[in-house]
Amino acid sequence: MPMTMTQKILADHAGLDEVAAGQLIMAKLDGVLGNDITTPVAIKEFEKAGFDSVFDKDRVFVVLDHFVPNKDIKAAQQSKTCREFCSHHSVSNFFDVGKMGIEHALLPEQGLVTAGDCIIGADSHTCTYGALGAFSTGVGSTDMAAGMATGQAWFKVPEAIKVNLTGKLNQGVSGKDVILSLIGMIGVDGALYQSLEFMGPGVCSLSMDDRLCICNMAIEAGAKNGIFPVDEITLEYMKGRSQREPKIFSADEDAEYARTIDLDLSSLEPIVSYPHLPENTHPAAESGHIEIDQVVIGSCTNGRMEDMDAAYEILHGKKVKDGVRCIIIPATMEIYKQCIENGYLMSFIEAGAVVSTPTCGPCLGGYMGILADNERCISTTNRNFVGRMGHVSSEVYLASPYTAAASALNGYITDPRTVME
Amino acid sequence: MPMTMTQKILADHAGLDEVAAGQLIMAKLDGVLGNDITTPVAIKEFEKAGFDSVFDKDRVFVVLDHFVPNKDIKAAQQSKTCREFCSHHSVSNFFDVGKMGIEHALLPEQGLVTAGDCIIGADSHTCTYGALGAFSTGVGSTDMAAGMATGQAWFKVPEAIKVNLTGKLNQGVSGKDVILSLIGMIGVDGALYQSLEFMGPGVCSLSMDDRLCICNMAIEAGAKNGIFPVDEITLEYMKGRSQREPKIFSADEDAEYARTIDLDLSSLEPIVSYPHLPENTHPAAESGHIEIDQVVIGSCTNGRMEDMDAAYEILHGKKVKDGVRCIIIPATMEIYKQCIENGYLMSFIEAGAVVSTPTCGPCLGGYMGILADNERCISTTNRNFVGRMGHVSSEVYLASPYTAAASALNGYITDPRTVME
Repeated sequence: MPMTMTQKILADHAGLDEVAAGQLIMAKLDGVLGNDITTPVAIKEFEKAGFDSVFDKDRVFVVLDHFVPNKDIKAAQQSKTCREFCSHHSVSNFFDVGKMGIEHALLPEQGLVTAGDCIIGADSHTCTYGALGAFSTGVGSTDMAAGMATGQAWFKVPEAIKVNLTGKLNQGVSGKDVILSLIGMIGVDGALYQSLEFMGPGVCSLSMDDRLCICNMAIEAGAKNGIFPVDEITLEYMKGRSQREPKIFSADEDAEYARTIDLDLSSLEPIVSYPHLPENTHPAAESGHIEIDQVVIGSCTNGRMEDMDAAYEILHGKKVKDGVRCIIIPATMEIYKQCIENGYLMSFIEAGAVVSTPTCGPCLGGYMGILADNERCISTTNRNFVGRMGHVSSEVYLASPYTAAASALNGYITDPRTVME
Repeated sequence: MPMTMTQKILADHAGLDEVAAGQLIMAKLDGVLGNDITTPVAIKEFEKAGFDSVFDKDRVFVVLDHFVPNKDIKAAQQSKTCREFCSHHSVSNFFDVGKMGIEHALLPEQGLVTAGDCIIGADSHTCTYGALGAFSTGVGSTDMAAGMATGQAWFKVPEAIKVNLTGKLNQGVSGKDVILSLIGMIGVDGALYQSLEFMGPGVCSLSMDDRLCICNMAIEAGAKNGIFPVDEITLEYMKGRSQREPKIFSADEDAEYARTIDLDLSSLEPIVSYPHLPENTHPAAESGHIEIDQVVIGSCTNGRMEDMDAAYEILHGKKVKDGVRCIIIPATMEIYKQCIENGYLMSFIEAGAVVSTPTCGPCLGGYMGILADNERCISTTNRNFVGRMGHVSSEVYLASPYTAAASALNGYITDPRTVME
C-alpha cells in the first residue's frame, strides 16, 4: 500500500511494514518534550501513575521558556518542579535560565531532533520539526507523562493534504506569508487531524527557517503535523548539528492524498491575519490605516535568525514610531548572541525597540508585553484568538517579521515592500 | 541659626532664611516622580481632587520600570493609565518601553535631577539623588498627586546624623559595602526621619556610582534622606548632563547633628546582609558555605555602569556555577548599550548569565527572577524582607556586585577578594 511521508515515518516507528490512514498504532518515540508550563502537569501524572524512571535520560527534553526568568511565585514553583525532576532523573537535556531558548527553535538548533524522528511534545507547536523531515506533534501532559516513562505513544495514522509548491517568494515575502496564505485558503480546521505534506518544485527555494515557520503553524489549520521532504537544504542544516543519525523517508509516488492544494510562491504577498482567527487573512497592502500600540517580533514561529535578519533589514538606521512599543525576542541564546555579534541588538535598541532574553511570554499573554484594554498589536506569533495577548478587548494581528517591523516604523499596519529599499 | 546641608536646601525651597529640625514647611519642588506602580494611584487621587493640570509639564517624571514590558493585564492597564495621563498633560519626561530605565538610575543619568534640587518621588528609594547634593525623598501616591498639581510638598525638617568618612575603599569593596556596614552599625531604624549627611576626607575617594548606591539605601536605615557634599566629582558628573543649573549648598561648619558616626572606608570589607533585614550584616569572608540558587545584579541600588564593571571583572572568561541562575539587569538603556559596546553583554552570556532589559522586577518580587519555596538568592538589591523576592520561605542575601558575581561563580556566598586576580 502506498504511503505518505508521515505514514512511512509512523510505520517505521511502529515496527510495521505499512500503515493506513485511520489505523491506531503504538510508535516508538525519539524524543519527548515539555516546557515550564506543561512539564509540571506531566510530572504529576508521571508520579501518580507510579513510574519511577524516564525511558531515556537523553531523549526527554525539558525547556523553561514560557515564564523565565520567573515572573511570579507560581512560575517559580513550576520551574523548580522541572528542575528537581530533571535532576532526580538525570535528564541531560534540561534547559534552565542561562541556557534558555524557545523550545521549538532550540531543539532543531541543538540537533536534538533530526530527519525521520518521531517526536511528541506537550506544546501544540511541536509540529515545527516537520521542517526537518520528522514527524512531530503536540500532545497533552498526560501523553507526555506516558511518553517520558515508556518512550512510546499511540497515534491514529493521519491522512494527508498535499501542498504542491511552485515558484519562489518575492522580496519582503517569507515563510510566514506562505502559511498564513494557506490557512486563509483552507481555514483553521482545513486540515483537521491531517498531515500537511509540502512538496513540489517550490520547496527548494524555501530556507530552513521558512520551513520551520511553515510547519510550526500547521496546527493553526488543525493539522496533526506539517512536513517537508529532506533535501540539500535539510542535510546542510543538520550537518554537524544532529546528535543522531538522520533517517530519510519519502512519500510514495502514488501515495493517496485527501486533496491537493497548489500554491505558487511567486504569487504570494505580505499577509496579515486580522483578529480573531489566523484564517482571517488580508493582504498587508490592503490594510488601510490600522494603528498599532505594540509590535512583537519573536516566538517559536518567527524568532529565528532569518527573522532577526528581516527585522534588521527594516529597522536598521530608522526609528520605531513614537508611542509604539516594539519588543524583539530572539528565540534562543545562540540567536541572541548572533544578534549581539552582528550589531543587530544595538541597531534594534537604537531604533527604539527593546530586546528580551528568549521567552514565549507575549505570544500567549503570559509575560513580556501584555496588552491593555483596546490595545492593538501586530505580532509574528501564531495565534490571534480573543484575549490571546492580554485584555479581552485587545487585538492581535499576525504577520511576518518584515511586516511587523515595517508597521513598527509607521505606527500602522504596513506592507513591508513600501519601506524596503 | 546654623543649618545642615539638607536644612539649607529645604529653607531655600521654602523661601525662608532658616529652618530648624522639626519645623513644618511647604517647599517648592524641582521635580515629582512616579513609576508604573505608584503613578496610577497618584493619577486617581489627582483626578479625585479635581486637579486639571500638572504644575510643570517638564518637572513631572513618569518612569515605567517595574513591570515592563508588561508582565500581565494589570501591569498593562497601569502602564496605559500612565501613558494616557502623560499624553493628556503633555508630560515631557515620560519613559515608556524603548526609553526605559530604572527611575533612580535614569533621572540622574538624564540630568533631570541636579545639585540643590528638592525632589519627591512615589518610591521609597527616591533618596538616591542626595548623591548629587540634592534633597530627595520618597512619598506616598497622594503626596505625589498633590506635588504634580501644585509643585509643592510639605515636610517636617529633619535633624541629621553626620557620617564622617575617612580613608579609601580597598579593592573588591564598594559603596554597597559602605551603606550595608553603616546600616549594620545603626540598624534599620537607626536614622529614623533623620538626614544621613556624608562628609569628611573620605568623600572624595567615592565615585558618583558609589554615592548613588549609598544614598539609595539611606531609607533602609529609616532616613528621610541621604546627602553628599558637592565636589569636583559631582560637578564632573553633572557637566553637560544637568538640564537645569545646579545650586550648591553646604552645611554650616557649626551645624548641629543628632550624632556623629566615624567610618574609616579603608577598614571596610565585603558585607552581606542575611535574611531578613538589611541590618543583619556579616562579613562575606565569614559566610561559610551558604549555597545559592539565584544571583541578581541590578536594581536602582546597583545597576549602574560601575556595577556592570564589577560584574564583568569577576565573571569575564569564567562560568556561572551549574544550577545557579544569574540575572544581570543594567539599570538604563544607556548602561545596557554601554554593556553591548564594551563586550560585557556577550561576556555575561558566555559566562552563563542572562541579561534583561531595565526593570526593577526581581527586587520587589514582581518580575524577572522570582524565587520558589526555600530558594536562596544573593542580590545587589536593597531589601531582604520575608518574601521580598518571591515565596515566603525564600531568602535574599544583600551584597555588592563584586560579592554577588563571585558567589555566582562558586554557587555559594563568596568573598569576592578570593576570586579576584
